[in-house]
Amino acid sequence: MARAKLELTALPGIPMVQPGDDIGKLIADSIARTSIILKPQDVLVVAQKIISKAEGRVIALDKVKPRPDARDWAAKTDKDPRLVELILMESKRVVRHRPGVMIVEHRLGFVMANAGIDQSNVGPKEDGEHAILLPLKPDDSAARLRTALRASQGVDVGVVISDSFGRPFRSGTAGVAIGTAGMPALLDLRGEPDLFGRELGVSISGFADEIAAAASLLMGQGNEGLPAVIISGLTWTRPDTNAAEIVRDPDEDLFR
Amino acid sequence: MARAKLELTALPGIPMVQPGDDIGKLIADSIARTSIILKPQDVLVVAQKIISKAEGRVIALDKVKPRPDARDWAAKTDKDPRLVELILMESKRVVRHRPGVMIVEHRLGFVMANAGIDQSNVGPKEDGEHAILLPLKPDDSAARLRTALRASQGVDVGVVISDSFGRPFRSGTAGVAIGTAGMPALLDLRGEPDLFGRELGVSISGFADEIAAAASLLMGQGNEGLPAVIISGLTWTRPDTNAAEIVRDPDEDLFR
Repeated sequence: MARAKLELTALPGIPMVQPGDDIGKLIADSIARTSIILKPQDVLVVAQKIISKAEGRVIALDKVKPRPDARDWAAKTDKDPRLVELILMESKRVVRHRPGVMIVEHRLGFVMANAGIDQSNVGPKEDGEHAILLPLKPDDSAARLRTALRASQGVDVGVVISDSFGRPFRSGTAGVAIGTAGMPALLDLRGEPDLFGRELGVSISGFADEIAAAASLLMGQGNEGLPAVIISGLTWTRPDTNAAEIVRDPDEDLFR
Repeated sequence: MARAKLELTALPGIPMVQPGDDIGKLIADSIARTSIILKPQDVLVVAQKIISKAEGRVIALDKVKPRPDARDWAAKTDKDPRLVELILMESKRVVRHRPGVMIVEHRLGFVMANAGIDQSNVGPKEDGEHAILLPLKPDDSAARLRTALRASQGVDVGVVISDSFGRPFRSGTAGVAIGTAGMPALLDLRGEPDLFGRELGVSISGFADEIAAAASLLMGQGNEGLPAVIISGLTWTRPDTNAAEIVRDPDEDLFR
């Protein structure tokens, strides 16, 4: 816990990502333009959007045929029925709704607005309307990126795939982790004594989420120009876990 | 938005804080031991706990007489009735409960577990059990700290008073801002076009919360030894607002 300094660097010059692009290569190319030498327990945070685009999770809205269920929800929420069709496809159930917003339990378990489907920064307006879905398996995307970096940089780093979520009770979005590899998603501090030798009360820290929030300060909300951030200075001794671990057990959740 | 680097430094050697201590002076003394020269738009993040202790918000539990209402809630939640008395005193209402946890709407508006009342790191066991309440007005605490730093360092910085909150849906705590001064609590990006000139969809970022989360990575959960962090590299052009702004309007909140 004796970490005294963190340094966050946004990787420069990552181009607009197209379906099929090799994100591991784009990141290695960017690192080569900097003086960064990756070390173990450095963490690479990558915005979900470029992972999704590289993985081809971009859907032309004019190809989407909304089913009756989607039309019903669209009427209830005053949303585009084609977008609602995609939201329902990506979700287990609708948790809350109001005009303009559907809060769903995503198939990955995350409770989030509009199943994380994004319409900004997809491409020029004249290409028609597109939507970007979350990566199929963000934990796997993170693991592949980690493997790619091991090959190109010769070192094992932690990887976080991040997104920006709205939150209950608090205005404003915050960066969160939807995929992790090579690091713990949560830091379980239970059993570690406080300064006076008592066991800690609040004891599990949302490590990967805090990392994603920190990186978000550099990425900005609408800026695809800075979609990857290296964080150095973190240390951990807990085993690696996936971001799936962050999903709170519904039986223990007082707000579902 | 062209920020490429952030640096976070935990201030060294801040001693155990006692009621009446001058936090501004403790921080100035610590800065003097480092090579840090504060610049405008640097942000100082300070853990709520040391602010509360300095402001004397420490209560000896054996002086607390639980009222009948507190005894009822204590029976329902299997908690110490004296602690429940303090939780109710600090809260507008109980939002959810289960054994061991009361989620309340704090008098400051924040929805949080146990009214943010902490029992760890208060003092040696032989001093008896104590509880630490949140600062009376954390935004004012932040403003006073900003004024103190202006006097000692000759520069206006942003100040965040941070705490660690559990969250609905996601396991693990994350640093959040409960007080701010000299900076925007939220960054409203509405109206700023994305890379393709479309207006951004998700558009208000939880700036101060993301700052608190980033600082929390250095502070650790149980470590009062690193209760203050300087962040440099942030920029903003929006006007200053208080952390009170972060409380979501209950009428707009789908999870109350």
